[in-house]
Amino acid sequence: MPPTDKPPTAAMLVIGDEILSGRTKDRNAGHLAERLDPVGIALREIRVVPDETARIVDAVNALRRSYTYVFTSGGIGPTHDDITAAAIAEAVGQPLIEDDRAIAILEEYYHERNLPFTAARRRMTRMPEGSSLIQNRVSAAPGFVALNIYVMAGIPSVFSAMLDAVLPTLQLSEPLKIETVATGLGEGVFGEALAEIAERYPSMSIGSYPRHDGTHYTAEIVIRGIDAGAVADARADIIAMLDELVGEN
Amino acid sequence: MPPTDKPPTAAMLVIGDEILSGRTKDRNAGHLAERLDPVGIALREIRVVPDETARIVDAVNALRRSYTYVFTSGGIGPTHDDITAAAIAEAVGQPLIEDDRAIAILEEYYHERNLPFTAARRRMTRMPEGSSLIQNRVSAAPGFVALNIYVMAGIPSVFSAMLDAVLPTLQLSEPLKIETVATGLGEGVFGEALAEIAERYPSMSIGSYPRHDGTHYTAEIVIRGIDAGAVADARADIIAMLDELVGEN
Repeated sequence: MPPTDKPPTAAMLVIGDEILSGRTKDRNAGHLAERLDPVGIALREIRVVPDETARIVDAVNALRRSYTYVFTSGGIGPTHDDITAAAIAEAVGQPLIEDDRAIAILEEYYHERNLPFTAARRRMTRMPEGSSLIQNRVSAAPGFVALNIYVMAGIPSVFSAMLDAVLPTLQLSEPLKIETVATGLGEGVFGEALAEIAERYPSMSIGSYPRHDGTHYTAEIVIRGIDAGAVADARADIIAMLDELVGEN
Repeated sequence: MPPTDKPPTAAMLVIGDEILSGRTKDRNAGHLAERLDPVGIALREIRVVPDETARIVDAVNALRRSYTYVFTSGGIGPTHDDITAAAIAEAVGQPLIEDDRAIAILEEYYHERNLPFTAARRRMTRMPEGSSLIQNRVSAAPGFVALNIYVMAGIPSVFSAMLDAVLPTLQLSEPLKIETVATGLGEGVFGEALAEIAERYPSMSIGSYPRHDGTHYTAEIVIRGIDAGAVADARADIIAMLDELVGEN
């Protein structure tokens, strides 16, 4: 991916019936969001689709054309319902092959453990021709990179280790400056005044995030922008506005 | 939504910059998945998009045409970044109005508490003309239903209360019969034998979900189908297969 002037963007595709049935709670998308934000890659979309080839192909093709990077989790294990590698090959128009490098890694891994390199385990060497491997410190079976698609495991510890391997290879950017202002006031109290401040700082993202403790509503106001000085100015304006409202209420 | 012979389907649209930045972990999609599965509504897709009107409109229009029901969370509060109601109005082609029923509810709510019904709070009465209200036991501010789109709050306790109000109004279906078989074996050991069993039961969804405890891989095999007898037969075949492999390994 050649460097450009625009900040890089990303999408996450979570693949798995078990997420949609509620059996498993996805943790990989939230983890990816936490890791990308500080390195200036903007995660712009998350999708979850079932273990169905057509659904995976359609989602991958929509996302890979819209974002700098696409990350996927799930469906690269040794069982019959692990269909992600074949679906990615179809999406990028490359033949699905058993990768020689992956075969060598897994042959050695199982040999050292006196375990048979079964046909099921051999499924984990399949990827689109021309892919790069994503090796990692947790799992012998590698993920892979095809075009701008980073295909990683669904098990959170393996996903995270694969992300450790991948992040240093990506085009990073200046992270946004972020300030958070907590308030015991509800959004209905400060909503209009905050809207006026947000209008004065059009280049900044100013968001309000309500909480409800069962009785009271409170909120956190988050200011995000490239210009640290302007973020600090907006923060000071918001604090002054809240102080004035606390005096009134 | 008229009843049909086909089981109802659903999609979830999570709206919010805070999820994509990793600041907040979404809990509503997982909660929805857990609630829909037992009542026979198949959650088939989840998307997360930022607080941007065009992105919300595009996602809502794609999802509402593909699924029986669309549920949204987030962006219906009183601040300037709460743009969901206006985006839904645009998506369904209805004018955005301040709903008289919602005004009456909130006027009474704030009057009882000696709080002003501010312009910010009044934003929470906006919805596409012709919507139904989603009232609930936690929040005075209602969600709303426009066409097949159920627009609900982002705060998990309010989202859950709105779902309580909504579920009894939906077209339910027979839930799938589900059996889970836990095994201490790794997927690479039983993958081929499981694939053979899955081929013998084509009407059933047989999935394998690996776990990694830092040292060992184990797995759970989940069988899902309409026919309880066939699910029981598949379960017995899988247990016999695993017993045989344990004897060998």
